[in-house]
Amino acid sequence: MTMVLTLTTDFGTRDGFVAQMKGVVLQINPSVRLIDVTHDIEPYSVLHAALVLKGISRYFPAGTIHIAVVDPGVGSDRRGMALKAGDQLYVGPDNGLFSLVLAESSSWEARRIENTRYMLPNPHPTFHGRDVFAPVAAHLSAGKTLESVGTRIHDPVMVPVPSPVITEQGVEGEVIHIDRFGNLTTNIDAGMLSEPVASIRTAGVSISRVSQYFDEACEGRPVALVNSFGLLEIAIARGNASRKLGVAPGTRVTVAFA
Amino acid sequence: MTMVLTLTTDFGTRDGFVAQMKGVVLQINPSVRLIDVTHDIEPYSVLHAALVLKGISRYFPAGTIHIAVVDPGVGSDRRGMALKAGDQLYVGPDNGLFSLVLAESSSWEARRIENTRYMLPNPHPTFHGRDVFAPVAAHLSAGKTLESVGTRIHDPVMVPVPSPVITEQGVEGEVIHIDRFGNLTTNIDAGMLSEPVASIRTAGVSISRVSQYFDEACEGRPVALVNSFGLLEIAIARGNASRKLGVAPGTRVTVAFA
Amino acid sequence: MTMVLTLTTDFGTRDGFVAQMKGVVLQINPSVRLIDVTHDIEPYSVLHAALVLKGISRYFPAGTIHIAVVDPGVGSDRRGMALKAGDQLYVGPDNGLFSLVLAESSSWEARRIENTRYMLPNPHPTFHGRDVFAPVAAHLSAGKTLESVGTRIHDPVMVPVPSPVITEQGVEGEVIHIDRFGNLTTNIDAGMLSEPVASIRTAGVSISRVSQYFDEACEGRPVALVNSFGLLEIAIARGNASRKLGVAPGTRVTVAFA
Repeated sequence: MTMVLTLTTDFGTRDGFVAQMKGVVLQINPSVRLIDVTHDIEPYSVLHAALVLKGISRYFPAGTIHIAVVDPGVGSDRRGMALKAGDQLYVGPDNGLFSLVLAESSSWEARRIENTRYMLPNPHPTFHGRDVFAPVAAHLSAGKTLESVGTRIHDPVMVPVPSPVITEQGVEGEVIHIDRFGNLTTNIDAGMLSEPVASIRTAGVSISRVSQYFDEACEGRPVALVNSFGLLEIAIARGNASRKLGVAPGTRVTVAFA
Repeated sequence: MTMVLTLTTDFGTRDGFVAQMKGVVLQINPSVRLIDVTHDIEPYSVLHAALVLKGISRYFPAGTIHIAVVDPGVGSDRRGMALKAGDQLYVGPDNGLFSLVLAESSSWEARRIENTRYMLPNPHPTFHGRDVFAPVAAHLSAGKTLESVGTRIHDPVMVPVPSPVITEQGVEGEVIHIDRFGNLTTNIDAGMLSEPVASIRTAGVSISRVSQYFDEACEGRPVALVNSFGLLEIAIARGNASRKLGVAPGTRVTVAFA
Repeated sequence: MTMVLTLTTDFGTRDGFVAQMKGVVLQINPSVRLIDVTHDIEPYSVLHAALVLKGISRYFPAGTIHIAVVDPGVGSDRRGMALKAGDQLYVGPDNGLFSLVLAESSSWEARRIENTRYMLPNPHPTFHGRDVFAPVAAHLSAGKTLESVGTRIHDPVMVPVPSPVITEQGVEGEVIHIDRFGNLTTNIDAGMLSEPVASIRTAGVSISRVSQYFDEACEGRPVALVNSFGLLEIAIARGNASRKLGVAPGTRVTVAFA
């Protein structure tokens, strides 16, 4: 069976760093399928990568291995980790990258990357993506066991995610991600919207209902809906809400129930 | 035979949406070859995507399936479409994305996407790329027939493309696309340049002839040539014409014959 | 054995040019593995591409073929070249793209691309990437010999790379590349840092030592280290040195020995 190996980094592509990682993988396992998730993670943003990884995991075949490298602490004493959660594997620094995946996994097993036979010789202190994580993932894709990577980690680092607050009137949350279209992803889960909504407010805008799709609003008008991550999202129909409303991650979003 | 499946979207890559689509495809057909065309289509620009799709189609092997998703109307009543044109297949919203391909195809067959067995359960109203188009294309790549997708579409939506006008002096056209280098693609086809050209004018610049390649002009000087789409193009040798001349799509271009 | 074929260009992806090249390759050799290195080379920057190619080459399997196209002189009389250097092959314009690879290769063989049977019919004067280099590389990946491409080139074009200067106090170099994180890559090789360093100065900043990794400095503070290319690099811990220090390629960097 062909194994799928995905890559998620904040490396961009212009320097060839990701290609170096792919070359390392192909030397170890020439038959693996390589899929780029993104190399445009906001530099150093562990939360951004954690959201993306949570979003993609359920859509990949069982046994898929996801390499993720957003790693400002590279070379320091932060641990490297190989993780099995559900039917997927994850390899990267233990700095919170996988914490949203962990939060929704009923069973998982994490191992510290210690087996130097799976690393390139003399890993460069600033590039564990190439010299540690890529070859470890490649060896896992070629049949090596998770146990052989290293000893168990029982306390993987969890990234702090701002939680919404239930109030008397409704829910107080915030914007946690701006997508490519400028749409505002909030931390308010669809499950918190069980009561009829009277208004959704952010940045001076008030929206009176949760729509099903963008074009329910006229072009240029704000619209709220549950996005494909299952989270409340505020958008401008055929426009860019982040730019038009001047909203960045951290901006408050208030839902009032009817 | 390995099938090739390409992807053209305005999703960018930073949110993982494209990777979700790829995961869906690989679960249905693990052996398909995935080729990214671009995810940098100008957001919501159906015309930009239509030009790119016209440009790539003739270069891919027979039987290649092209998924294209630029879909501001997702979730509304716009139709989903699977199309055979020439020896290639296309899957996406019926909103004009494939109209330049259709315009040069002598024979085509379009089907409305209706077969829910080819979709993910409960398609999300804002992400048919993942829940409808990706799985439909994957099923087609795995051998399902076009007929099995749904009933025929006889009137696919055509995107309005500005047409050049033949005048007494020559041709009046306009810029329809700015490429990565800032080169200006016009809507003036090479076939309209059959008479000797006296001048090509746009944005205060006058060029006296159609060159074969960029370096016929000195660095920093304007040059006109027929580009690899077969369209008249205006460039600045080793520079960025769009920035230097302040030209955006819609700017008039006038060709005078000798 | 599956062949690996990589692509390095300054084409971006938004116009579909790279996809056209991939389609051409797949029509000639449907089983080749395609790996994108980057399409974000600074437009027309042969030096940027040469650095990236030098960086990736050692990490790919023997026999890998690298297509590189940064080609402002396309269509003029600049030569096309197919090159074997070490155990890798390279295809692109002979304009210096491969000169850093050549500089560290003990043996190489270069051939001028002359065999028209390996090109598309009537190559477009502005797009040899698609009509010449892609099909030549595809034919090489399918088993055609380097000799069959054309006659030998004995004097490949070398791109001028600024050299650091040894002084009485230490080394005078300069910034030659800014990476995705804004880190400053200099032309000062690790081998030139054999003596203990007293200071590293650039743009008004003085750093007192060469660190092993970024997080040895506090967030927001400058740090110097040997990067994964083996070159001296100046960074801002978890920040963007290029933006913060206002440094572009060409800025002087002075190392003083103790």
